Amino acid sequence: MDYINQIDIKAGMEIDELVRMMERCGFGARRLAEAVNIYEEMLSEDYTRVFTLAGAMVPAGMRNIISSLIRDGRIDVLVSTGANLVHDIIEGYSHHIRGDPLACDADLRDEGLSRIFDVYVEDDDFVKFEEILQEALPESSEPMTGSELLRVLGRRIEDERSILRSAYDRRVPIFCPALSDSMIGLQAWLCRQTRELYVDAFGDVGELVDICYGAERSGIVIIGGGVPKNFALQSMLVTPNSFDLAIQLTTDRPEAGGLSGASLSEAVSWGKIGAGAKKVTVYGDATITLPLMVAATLTRLEKKRV
Amino acid sequence: MDYINQIDIKAGMEIDELVRMMERCGFGARRLAEAVNIYEEMLSEDYTRVFTLAGAMVPAGMRNIISSLIRDGRIDVLVSTGANLVHDIIEGYSHHIRGDPLACDADLRDEGLSRIFDVYVEDDDFVKFEEILQEALPESSEPMTGSELLRVLGRRIEDERSILRSAYDRRVPIFCPALSDSMIGLQAWLCRQTRELYVDAFGDVGELVDICYGAERSGIVIIGGGVPKNFALQSMLVTPNSFDLAIQLTTDRPEAGGLSGASLSEAVSWGKIGAGAKKVTVYGDATITLPLMVAATLTRLEKKRV
Amino acid sequence: MDYINQIDIKAGMEIDELVRMMERCGFGARRLAEAVNIYEEMLSEDYTRVFTLAGAMVPAGMRNIISSLIRDGRIDVLVSTGANLVHDIIEGYSHHIRGDPLACDADLRDEGLSRIFDVYVEDDDFVKFEEILQEALPESSEPMTGSELLRVLGRRIEDERSILRSAYDRRVPIFCPALSDSMIGLQAWLCRQTRELYVDAFGDVGELVDICYGAERSGIVIIGGGVPKNFALQSMLVTPNSFDLAIQLTTDRPEAGGLSGASLSEAVSWGKIGAGAKKVTVYGDATITLPLMVAATLTRLEKKRV
Amino acid sequence: MDYINQIDIKAGMEIDELVRMMERCGFGARRLAEAVNIYEEMLSEDYTRVFTLAGAMVPAGMRNIISSLIRDGRIDVLVSTGANLVHDIIEGYSHHIRGDPLACDADLRDEGLSRIFDVYVEDDDFVKFEEILQEALPESSEPMTGSELLRVLGRRIEDERSILRSAYDRRVPIFCPALSDSMIGLQAWLCRQTRELYVDAFGDVGELVDICYGAERSGIVIIGGGVPKNFALQSMLVTPNSFDLAIQLTTDRPEAGGLSGASLSEAVSWGKIGAGAKKVTVYGDATITLPLMVAATLTRLEKKRV
Repeated sequence: MDYINQIDIKAGMEIDELVRMMERCGFGARRLAEAVNIYEEMLSEDYTRVFTLAGAMVPAGMRNIISSLIRDGRIDVLVSTGANLVHDIIEGYSHHIRGDPLACDADLRDEGLSRIFDVYVEDDDFVKFEEILQEALPESSEPMTGSELLRVLGRRIEDERSILRSAYDRRVPIFCPALSDSMIGLQAWLCRQTRELYVDAFGDVGELVDICYGAERSGIVIIGGGVPKNFALQSMLVTPNSFDLAIQLTTDRPEAGGLSGASLSEAVSWGKIGAGAKKVTVYGDATITLPLMVAATLTRLEKKRV
Repeated sequence: MDYINQIDIKAGMEIDELVRMMERCGFGARRLAEAVNIYEEMLSEDYTRVFTLAGAMVPAGMRNIISSLIRDGRIDVLVSTGANLVHDIIEGYSHHIRGDPLACDADLRDEGLSRIFDVYVEDDDFVKFEEILQEALPESSEPMTGSELLRVLGRRIEDERSILRSAYDRRVPIFCPALSDSMIGLQAWLCRQTRELYVDAFGDVGELVDICYGAERSGIVIIGGGVPKNFALQSMLVTPNSFDLAIQLTTDRPEAGGLSGASLSEAVSWGKIGAGAKKVTVYGDATITLPLMVAATLTRLEKKRV
Repeated sequence: MDYINQIDIKAGMEIDELVRMMERCGFGARRLAEAVNIYEEMLSEDYTRVFTLAGAMVPAGMRNIISSLIRDGRIDVLVSTGANLVHDIIEGYSHHIRGDPLACDADLRDEGLSRIFDVYVEDDDFVKFEEILQEALPESSEPMTGSELLRVLGRRIEDERSILRSAYDRRVPIFCPALSDSMIGLQAWLCRQTRELYVDAFGDVGELVDICYGAERSGIVIIGGGVPKNFALQSMLVTPNSFDLAIQLTTDRPEAGGLSGASLSEAVSWGKIGAGAKKVTVYGDATITLPLMVAATLTRLEKKRV
Repeated sequence: MDYINQIDIKAGMEIDELVRMMERCGFGARRLAEAVNIYEEMLSEDYTRVFTLAGAMVPAGMRNIISSLIRDGRIDVLVSTGANLVHDIIEGYSHHIRGDPLACDADLRDEGLSRIFDVYVEDDDFVKFEEILQEALPESSEPMTGSELLRVLGRRIEDERSILRSAYDRRVPIFCPALSDSMIGLQAWLCRQTRELYVDAFGDVGELVDICYGAERSGIVIIGGGVPKNFALQSMLVTPNSFDLAIQLTTDRPEAGGLSGASLSEAVSWGKIGAGAKKVTVYGDATITLPLMVAATLTRLEKKRV
């Protein structure tokens, strides 16, 4: 029989030490441990690794985790919301601010602060963002793909901890299927008052389909659902393949029927994830579960190397 | 003092009768009643009405609610996920199927059924979808906007209960900022193997900004967050205006920081929603709260007319 | 095949008209419709009907729904938190107040208002509560059961809309397994400084077990989980019976492992609910779903009678 | 200005190292870090420490965390659901089993397994539980308090990792306001067929009120809401005191109005928590957040001692 073990906590404990104990627990603890097991396999064996990013993860302080994974060759494809890329650019020249989720929003407006739950962004940072984008956005009479545009932006960023810059350096494609739905979209619209700039709305579809088609074995890490989750999963629909490993860190639930909260099992019925895939959803705030999962997995990889 | 009244239920009760009682209750009941009050004002006075649609609302049976609101002139701008439009097209020639959320997904895959929580879609419907799209997608060497493409599709649909067709008939623009993130995106990619079809990724940005700029008074109904919510709200950022009325029906919560679950108050700090706006979030499954809100509001409008 | 039907909304719609349409929808809407089908069977056929009540349903305005169900013979056993009974007594001589969930709680404290999300209670009402209880609590040197004590309190309440009074009038037992965890508990403690009052902590167990044992067919409605849910379900453990019909209206989810959010299916493994039972959980705020379920069910019962 | 710092992950990271970084993040990560700061103060300075325990924490593997906190003098009062104590007794002679949350519950029933999400309990363990309780439950013609009864049970348990035994050894009172709502309640009822056993339903109220009254400074850790949360907080109502430090680890949300999900701020309006108290709610599965909080805090205490 496969028993539950009671966790023993001690001072100075390493993250992976705790996670290994969680494997023999119930509920969220066990799911987190399963996620680490799957991520260890994804990173230590030969998988095409897709990483999807929704939610305000960069404003919350998760930027370096993503950019380090890219720099270390642990993400082959990033699918992101526009917002995370906008805030990645902002972190290149400024900082987000620790704020109060109960602050008066009308007062914040007067003080030039925009709120993202308990994080603020200064209006001045958006002014600077405009300057940078208006300079960086290319002139193009021929349609570019979204990922090409993001490479252009990545090349212009000097900060090596930037997600966009890291992806540029490592030639990791970033797909942002709702590029217009972000300040990048607003800046592109502004810039086109005076300059030609065409981005092909369907330009990225084929590129990701080709990657999925060519992947012998593939794994996906889904942070928070949304368009990035769906875009990555749907690319498998037009290939004979499906994801072999899948991890989802989310606060969304299945029962209201939205794709963000859909179980990974549901994706099996569509052929997006394989019937025999290893897969787990960890319910909870990804600002807690993502750092834990990455820290525990890196610890294991380090030990293997030695 | 403003007292709580205890609800009295009786057989044969009308929806608005109950909602009016809920106004003097607490918790979700009161929020639902506030939503109806705001929606009544939005529909009976002169507002530019933006409606955003995420979640699998069409597969769940909410299609006619949306298309009727459009036909009756109660939506001026629709912002949608691609998925809802795909399933709107499918409903034009077939039906979704009542399924079992606990079915074995590998078996469903073998039976040619794709699952959306407790709703199934038949593979054959996607085959037909491909035929229709491959015929309907236009040839265009010049970049179209996404909303132009959706108008082309809407014109080809004969079913008058279709959202796309209703919007075409009533000249209501539909914006789908993540058009590539849907089967429409996959079909567009396929179609371009043999035909020119360019959709401008930023084409819709200016059109919605112009509408927001020109709106003297505006209201927004947000179903389920996601890209549609953000795209509609961000358009206010580059105008001196902001939404005066706002209703959000969602299962998402603020504390994990994602935009889908962000409070409407947070949008005040950004200037997307006015400091003095009337606004309410009703937490819960929109397949329950949307029909209730619409039914109660239509009842009130009907009474006013008499 | 069993198709999804798209809902059609019209002005003046009755609640049950909408609920019947929801039966052919997906997600929460369908679950609500299933709950009404099960509740219709529970109320129109010969079932022993257990109703469990957690959450602040009385402060939110749901008191008359419960007391009417009792008066009309539709609840045979009520299992409740202490808080709902305390607020039932308060509603007998005062009102709860519609408040602001974002009010400053330190200010409310100074103003003599206690907050329950967006509902306030005045300190004066608790002063009066003390007077009433100190007079009403019996002297007893022999141990009473909790339900006997609640009958004593029910008899003293004049307000016919009271849950306690209605249960007293209809001889419906009320079980409150955590009686000490409420202001009734605090008042009992106070009263015992000067008077003998013994309530037997295990006194109710046998009474509910006997009811469950004697029930040929039984149904349960669970509002919000907690101790009332568990106490009612566990009584089946020591009988050869199990619930044949079960409805759960809750915002809790299963994956964190707590009993409140546990699926009704889980209760089948324990033998609390029958393997062949009809059962459904409606996720959402019970201040919305309970009135809908009761209104739709009463409409159907009324039509049957005619 | 108070900036967000981006987290840097490295192999072999200690838990507290990560938590310290989280302090400068947003969302759940920051809340977890705040909880550790508060817990560090609660454990390193002179506070009366109340710990409330709901949810199936013992079946999930959290038993040793609680019992070690008790043994190390870090809990002065434990308020628990009956279920956690029942499963604490079971862990003294057997183990819970790692199960499958998607198993067929009717099959489990036939196999003699009862399911708690993804944890199983064997029927045989309940048979043994009955033997133990029938032997251990005392004969008493005079009313005992609930905490006295739990001390009697604790004395009989040999397993030093037991919560009940640890509390007995350290003279830490355990209050279980819904004692009848558990297998202990069912066994007490059974035992009384042949033996006198009186437990006074209100016996514990005064004991906890006295502790709260006498506490110069007090702190509370709330795991998962429910009756334990309310019982501990309400004890402050009849004292001039209130909690100075408060931590809540829960998956419940405020907006449906139940006490389990109520914000700690709401408790300020009642006078249960002080207006100037340090307090934080960490939303998420406590099988993840509790071990993290305890491990990080113990690490800090260890460092202080050196």
